[in-house]
Amino acid sequence: MKDIGHSPATCEKINGVLSRIGDKWSLLIMIALNGRGVMRFNELKRHLGISQRMLSLTLRELERDGLITRTAFATVPPTVEYEMTDLGRSFAQAVRKLGEWGIAHLAEIDAARLAYDQREVSQ
Amino acid sequence: MKDIGHSPATCEKINGVLSRIGDKWSLLIMIALNGRGVMRFNELKRHLGISQRMLSLTLRELERDGLITRTAFATVPPTVEYEMTDLGRSFAQAVRKLGEWGIAHLAEIDAARLAYDQREVSQ
Repeated sequence: MKDIGHSPATCEKINGVLSRIGDKWSLLIMIALNGRGVMRFNELKRHLGISQRMLSLTLRELERDGLITRTAFATVPPTVEYEMTDLGRSFAQAVRKLGEWGIAHLAEIDAARLAYDQREVSQ
Repeated sequence: MKDIGHSPATCEKINGVLSRIGDKWSLLIMIALNGRGVMRFNELKRHLGISQRMLSLTLRELERDGLITRTAFATVPPTVEYEMTDLGRSFAQAVRKLGEWGIAHLAEIDAARLAYDQREVSQ
């Protein structure tokens, strides 16, 4: 476990990567696309309960990073579909580990929070 | 890959967990502690290039979540050490996967960004 986080160069790289992709909405969009395959803009919006502006911004960053593709169809009204690239799929695998960890340990985190808050109150 | 992100209940759980732990500074602190074992406040501050205020806030949340412990020593000046709990160590394993993915695919992301920016310019 010693090779990550030690050298300044590696630390800087991880910092750069997590700054780009380590935000909640990026992770949630990737998890959603990973489950569904292809999703339309409005479908993602409803599914995640995210604002229009934040969804637009995050999708554009994910497309720019090469993690998803955007396809516009000349329907009336126009529709836009988002789909993961191969790079995105491999990213989603790593994110999925984090999500699974979260689900598996949610109860422990909740218990720790409760204990912490009670200690704070009693001090 | 279908079981995560489909049911609203699961999606809400993941959302809750990632909202708590899916921020850049939490992830970076956990990666740093995972490499070093025990770290002092000022050591973390220097190592990560994080502001005093943001480091305090994030450490308190991580302690509240049961991921790290905080130990204060009555030295002059006082010192405070942070260390991962067993829960924190298991979390760090999942975060590490994300960090490793990032390092392994940094060049691909950079290439995708460059291509995207060039398309935007030429439009």
